[in-house]
Amino acid sequence: MEFRFSDNLKNMKPSEIRELLKYASNKNLISFGGGMPNPLTFPMAELKGIMDDVMDNYGALALQYGNTGGMNELKTEIKRLVNETEKIASSESEILVTSGSQQGLYELAKIFVNPGDVIITEEPTYVGAISAFDANKAEMHSIPMDSNGIRTDLVEEEVRKLVAAGRKPKFIYTIPTFQNPTGITMSLDRRKHLIEISQEYQIPLVEDNPYGELRYSGQRIPAMKSLDRDVIYLGTFSKIMCPGLRMGFTIGPEAFIGKVNLLKQALDLSSSTFSQFVAWQYLARNMVSKQIPKTVELYRKKRDIMLKALEEEFPEGSSWSRPDGGMFLWATVDSRINTTDLLPEAIQAGVAYVSGNAFSPARMQGSSMRLNFTFSEDDQIREGIRRLGTLISKKMEILETQ
Amino acid sequence: MEFRFSDNLKNMKPSEIRELLKYASNKNLISFGGGMPNPLTFPMAELKGIMDDVMDNYGALALQYGNTGGMNELKTEIKRLVNETEKIASSESEILVTSGSQQGLYELAKIFVNPGDVIITEEPTYVGAISAFDANKAEMHSIPMDSNGIRTDLVEEEVRKLVAAGRKPKFIYTIPTFQNPTGITMSLDRRKHLIEISQEYQIPLVEDNPYGELRYSGQRIPAMKSLDRDVIYLGTFSKIMCPGLRMGFTIGPEAFIGKVNLLKQALDLSSSTFSQFVAWQYLARNMVSKQIPKTVELYRKKRDIMLKALEEEFPEGSSWSRPDGGMFLWATVDSRINTTDLLPEAIQAGVAYVSGNAFSPARMQGSSMRLNFTFSEDDQIREGIRRLGTLISKKMEILETQ
Repeated sequence: MEFRFSDNLKNMKPSEIRELLKYASNKNLISFGGGMPNPLTFPMAELKGIMDDVMDNYGALALQYGNTGGMNELKTEIKRLVNETEKIASSESEILVTSGSQQGLYELAKIFVNPGDVIITEEPTYVGAISAFDANKAEMHSIPMDSNGIRTDLVEEEVRKLVAAGRKPKFIYTIPTFQNPTGITMSLDRRKHLIEISQEYQIPLVEDNPYGELRYSGQRIPAMKSLDRDVIYLGTFSKIMCPGLRMGFTIGPEAFIGKVNLLKQALDLSSSTFSQFVAWQYLARNMVSKQIPKTVELYRKKRDIMLKALEEEFPEGSSWSRPDGGMFLWATVDSRINTTDLLPEAIQAGVAYVSGNAFSPARMQGSSMRLNFTFSEDDQIREGIRRLGTLISKKMEILETQ
Repeated sequence: MEFRFSDNLKNMKPSEIRELLKYASNKNLISFGGGMPNPLTFPMAELKGIMDDVMDNYGALALQYGNTGGMNELKTEIKRLVNETEKIASSESEILVTSGSQQGLYELAKIFVNPGDVIITEEPTYVGAISAFDANKAEMHSIPMDSNGIRTDLVEEEVRKLVAAGRKPKFIYTIPTFQNPTGITMSLDRRKHLIEISQEYQIPLVEDNPYGELRYSGQRIPAMKSLDRDVIYLGTFSKIMCPGLRMGFTIGPEAFIGKVNLLKQALDLSSSTFSQFVAWQYLARNMVSKQIPKTVELYRKKRDIMLKALEEEFPEGSSWSRPDGGMFLWATVDSRINTTDLLPEAIQAGVAYVSGNAFSPARMQGSSMRLNFTFSEDDQIREGIRRLGTLISKKMEILETQ
């Protein structure tokens, strides 16, 4: 059979991260490539207990089809969670349960974007978001970041230009806290400026906040959603419970949530009812408040180990972010080195990362790489950074002699 | 905030079935509207035991992110399952795990359909398929059915016309066995004819088979996928295990499965790893062979009760299908009665169904309704059909006197 595929996937590339997972079975490889939480943080015994209780008390409901938008008891707990952690006010009718926040990203793009429509993102931005936006043929205009987050002055300039050209962006997408991939946190001033832009030009602002609870240093900065109820907010259970149950949520104005609900009927009818019951009980029993401090302690140590190793092993001319939380840091090496080209050699040397351009709508991150510090064991972090530092130094030596 | 939504959802309507679920909390309402398996068929104790074992033996993996296309051990078991039940030959690289077969339908449409592209469906067809196809702006050409299934002579005629007009359909979608909504099973001759059309015109044939194992009478007819390896086959665990874990699968040529894999990264990264481990163990322990006979016995009885009640309660001039399996039958009443208009009155009278036009791309099923016989208790089936028969008779009396 000769298939005649649609044009929908023509901008999509296989995710470098996912391709990398194939190498993860190589026992000698140290991978900083994935975005995986450390399984030591999974509340195994607690979840097993919850699952047993769910089967005993709600089995017939938990194994049945559920409402498209999610079970109301879970929404009530999500409402409580985001209010306690981020001071976000919401109601159940503004909340929709998703199959991981990846589904939230896809829904967002599908609901707003006609092919060729412009959206604003950070430069660089999350590879899964790029994938969701590409699948809906959005034209991403990515705006550079500095150590205070996305350059909102440049956002405003770009928005103004686009509006003048009759191409008003459909939304502005940002991960303001411990950004993926850079680890950078947006300052409060920038957050307020972004909200001003959103309100002035009536462009929806989307706040993706998977890592908000994973703070290891510094002061909490208010979520944009807590400052402006019009913000569309994407959340996930992947970092406060576990990723394998695929539970996320979207909070936004009812007019938007109604559309997501309609689309979700076509996408998967509903998210796993069983996963929803488990997530509901996990929140209702306040397991998050037990889990987070343990996770934070583990990840803080790993972040510090990686930062120290970078200091010791990476050659002069390299730089990296020093994130206050999250799962990633962002390293930039000698500008003559292309990290995409370097990757096969790195894997040969027993270490993996994701190259900068995987996160770059503008393809301008050729000498950067994302390093995950949450998954590997402590001595693996040291050894992996040593391998990587050695390789980069060697490359630079060769370049010097050319 | 004034949202400017995309055109993507403009053909989509809220699912009548889902809307109906809202009424399901009314204790007095007897609903034949949903498509829900009976919870008595859920293998509660077995699944609880499997979940415990998964948490004990594979917890760190089962709660983690997984491969986009699904875990290999599960694919191997799916390969074995479809070979044993439907004599379908496949390999793991032709199988992709989906978040319910609804996701399989969405992926199918997204991968093949540019806006306005033609696809061929049965008339009537599954409402979830219509939703997935509408969300991707397919132009559905629906072909009438008779008691032997879709009229393949008319399919060929339509295909010939479309090809001549340069509008070759992107695929032909069919539920050949115990079709949803009609309960009709396609004859072997028709199946072979459809395969011929698919091969001659090089149009992919899609076989959706959620109910194949639920046969209560008659002889098994070979799956089209067992006759032609090019067929794209959609399967689900919803009817042989339970719907609440949202597990389905797609089997098709590798070129197609590769595209689905790429799209799935954007849709939800992967289906629930935990659900996959449970489904894997469910198949590996051969629970299906214990579950199916019990389910078949329960549903056969319920089908027979509904058929008998229809015989006794529905007025002359009504007709209905006598399905050999599945979950639904299809009733057609006096042509002057519109079942969409009748529905609010039916709900008032304490009984619900889904009206024919919800399943009709051509909007030509105005006097039909889909009745689910698997979910309600036996005396509810009798009472619900009595209420419905009484209402229809009353309507006809009023029409006579007008």
